[in-house]
Amino acid sequence: MMQAEYLQRFARVALAGLNLQRGQSLAIKMEPEHAEIAAVVAEHAYRAGARYVDIWAESTRFLRSRLDHSLPEHLDYVPEHRALRNAEFLRDGWALLSLKGPIDPAVMEGADAERSGRINRVVSSVDAPLRRALATDETQWLVMAPPSPKWASRVIGISDGTAALAAMWEALVPVLRLNEDDPAAFWKRHGAGLKERAATLNDLQIRSLRFRDDGTDLDVPLHASARWIGGGATTQGGVDFSPNIPTEEVFTAPNAPKVSGRVAITRPVRVLGGLVRDGWFEFRDGAVVDYGATSGGDHLAAFLSVDEGSRSIGEIALVDSSSPIYQTGLVFENILLDENAACHFALGAAYPTCIAGGARMDDDELIAHGANRSRQHVDFMFGSDDIEVSAVAADGETVPIMKKGRFAL
Amino acid sequence: MMQAEYLQRFARVALAGLNLQRGQSLAIKMEPEHAEIAAVVAEHAYRAGARYVDIWAESTRFLRSRLDHSLPEHLDYVPEHRALRNAEFLRDGWALLSLKGPIDPAVMEGADAERSGRINRVVSSVDAPLRRALATDETQWLVMAPPSPKWASRVIGISDGTAALAAMWEALVPVLRLNEDDPAAFWKRHGAGLKERAATLNDLQIRSLRFRDDGTDLDVPLHASARWIGGGATTQGGVDFSPNIPTEEVFTAPNAPKVSGRVAITRPVRVLGGLVRDGWFEFRDGAVVDYGATSGGDHLAAFLSVDEGSRSIGEIALVDSSSPIYQTGLVFENILLDENAACHFALGAAYPTCIAGGARMDDDELIAHGANRSRQHVDFMFGSDDIEVSAVAADGETVPIMKKGRFAL
Repeated sequence: MMQAEYLQRFARVALAGLNLQRGQSLAIKMEPEHAEIAAVVAEHAYRAGARYVDIWAESTRFLRSRLDHSLPEHLDYVPEHRALRNAEFLRDGWALLSLKGPIDPAVMEGADAERSGRINRVVSSVDAPLRRALATDETQWLVMAPPSPKWASRVIGISDGTAALAAMWEALVPVLRLNEDDPAAFWKRHGAGLKERAATLNDLQIRSLRFRDDGTDLDVPLHASARWIGGGATTQGGVDFSPNIPTEEVFTAPNAPKVSGRVAITRPVRVLGGLVRDGWFEFRDGAVVDYGATSGGDHLAAFLSVDEGSRSIGEIALVDSSSPIYQTGLVFENILLDENAACHFALGAAYPTCIAGGARMDDDELIAHGANRSRQHVDFMFGSDDIEVSAVAADGETVPIMKKGRFAL
Repeated sequence: MMQAEYLQRFARVALAGLNLQRGQSLAIKMEPEHAEIAAVVAEHAYRAGARYVDIWAESTRFLRSRLDHSLPEHLDYVPEHRALRNAEFLRDGWALLSLKGPIDPAVMEGADAERSGRINRVVSSVDAPLRRALATDETQWLVMAPPSPKWASRVIGISDGTAALAAMWEALVPVLRLNEDDPAAFWKRHGAGLKERAATLNDLQIRSLRFRDDGTDLDVPLHASARWIGGGATTQGGVDFSPNIPTEEVFTAPNAPKVSGRVAITRPVRVLGGLVRDGWFEFRDGAVVDYGATSGGDHLAAFLSVDEGSRSIGEIALVDSSSPIYQTGLVFENILLDENAACHFALGAAYPTCIAGGARMDDDELIAHGANRSRQHVDFMFGSDDIEVSAVAADGETVPIMKKGRFAL
């Protein structure tokens, strides 16, 4: 397949995932370097009757310059038009495509974690209403990760950017199912399969999950109102969409204050721009009481101090080793891809939609249902080919969920 | 010089031209593809104490997709946050850097001129308060044109983008004076020289200019309150800055309703995205009464119909053939560079600062002083090695201004 054909197929999948409605506007949140692929998506969007396609440029390079050189008194500043833009988006029911493929994975290495956390706190706070609206599926949103030369070099392990990019597109063909005659139809079928798995888990009325693996023995109780979700979402207005492509997970919100045990992280994770390797956490009464990592520990520390909810679990997700992302054998150092390779949890906010009736609850009600609140949400993968997952069901029975890394349901 | 060194020097010149104040925010209006050079500018800006550097991404590729595929009923739509962003910029006294180097000069070829004119009218109208504020130097603004591979291929005439880009940077070294030990100091000295030329012209109290060349015999009367400007500007708050780099011109606002004669355009000009070649205009009582071009005539027609002021002259500028841009022998198909290669006029709005006291005049007062008003402003070059320019001074004497393309002052 030629590069131009990949772009066309990627854009077709994006539009299918967004299910953009005629007359609806689309914002594309992107690194400026995503210009080429974003322009192809824009073309497909206008063909689908988009009212307008807006560029929301967020440059990690600009952020790094700011982190390194800004006077400290300017770090808390966010232009007012960001909040006004977000408000217009929500008022007029736009859809959001986030292109989250990194341009240069090394660009944030060595950045000051405290300054990074400070900027993150302010921007998160401005974006809070938008984030909340998307988490409750007020309108369609979709995260995808288009490849780019430097990222591809890092993932594939060859220095020539052009060759690495070609190899990464090749690796993404089975992951994004770009070789399907009709990739949009595939993602619809695939979503239905994940929805069925979520329904099976909901029928079990699981009281608690136990995860065991090398370095991991974690208890994750669930509130009676927790709901398993997977394979797509539906807006409050009834429009089906896919929030993530690829997606291989089913997930819910744990009863956050009850989580306990120890967990060893099996894939590197970017936290506030820093790469955290070989992380581990110990939980007591739902909160991190100890943690460590062979690198990125200072970024982890900055992350955990953003707010109280950053130290508790907001999401627990099941992915088995039959996942095409796991099968690539690659570590993407990108959450969208890596989270769909293995079981994971998120430190930070729960999705309100994981609680029955949660989309209409305020923070206090959500907390009363065990759902964690925070300005942040970062996934940590702890699954492997060896992980054992069991559940205690409503009837008190212990049910095997995963054996040796594969679903046993 | 290596590519990275060009970027550093380009950024240094940009910051010198902007004269960004400590604590001032900077907006960079750019194609997303300018990400790399813009990030270097952002770094220099934060080092200079910028409060914030904002990306205003405007993609010609997105625009082309919209022109080709949008439903007609959506063409008049502009998101509200654009006006809110502009208002915040003005309220808080930001500075603006416009990176106007084209990414792909061919991207707008064959686009529908009527649809293009329609989008242009709406966006121009939203941007009117910002444009007016910049035209009266409320705050610092600067236009520069960074090279990029496809544009370089077109200008240099070789198809390999990387080689063409290297050659174009080489061609821009004398144009941007990147080889000066201190390019910022050069542009300061150079500005002083142009200011001196403007002062000489102001002392002549010119009543009218006459331009004669092959295909050109144009009379351009000046109002008694017209002021020659060149070599930089000063904000209403007293901050010196350079609105254009490079700049080789001295310019003023003609007494628009009195312009008459015929003029042959000597360089191709992009008008609403279409390339106009071998254009010519005939003026009577200040307005275009006839015109033509060997290509791009439909874009010219769409341009002239945007508003009444689009058919009259708002600016007349003198540049002689000693200009380093003229000396390159290249046609850049880019107004910033090409206008500084030769004498030119603009169809559309006058700069209020070209009228004594004009920055504080409303449109009616400006018109009473001969200054043309319009939502548009596009330059047309008509200078050459053969052009003869003479002036009738206040005392009725005829004074030679340019002989055989060179200043005779």
